[in-house]
Amino acid sequence: MPTIVVEVMPKAEILDPQGKAVGNALARLGKNDLTNVRIGKRFEVSVDGPVDDAKLAEVREIAVDVFSNAVIEDVVSVTVVDDDTETGSAA
Amino acid sequence: MPTIVVEVMPKAEILDPQGKAVGNALARLGKNDLTNVRIGKRFEVSVDGPVDDAKLAEVREIAVDVFSNAVIEDVVSVTVVDDDTETGSAA
Repeated sequence: MPTIVVEVMPKAEILDPQGKAVGNALARLGKNDLTNVRIGKRFEVSVDGPVDDAKLAEVREIAVDVFSNAVIEDVVSVTVVDDDTETGSAA
Repeated sequence: MPTIVVEVMPKAEILDPQGKAVGNALARLGKNDLTNVRIGKRFEVSVDGPVDDAKLAEVREIAVDVFSNAVIEDVVSVTVVDDDTETGSAA
């Protein structure tokens, strides 16, 4: 069963206190070259049936309407992975 | 400045009530071909300096230790995107 991966991030102009906290933790750990952490969401949705461009467009619409808050978040990616061997290397 | 994208998902055997709730919402919207929604996290970390394999390995270690809870979550992907034009199409 194909899986569609949707990635949602806070808009660049929106403060991300969660990411800021993680960034500060990295600084305390001495990882001073890692800066500006931002944290968003990653959705995996299993699809019954084949995934074509129309289905991807439908899921992108759902991503904007349901998965994300358009006021503060952007849908940065909608990709399909072919099977359940989730490696994150989306096509 | 290069950005490293880390993706963390709940382990397959872990219930994901948040994802279940979104899946139920999709069913109510009549999207019955979209099943089994799971929700994880997506981190963007800006890196001062070049990203080589050693840096990626270091960030993967941080991802396991700091970004995720190894009891309930897996780090599914650590990739680098070259610039700040975040399209999600990680290399």
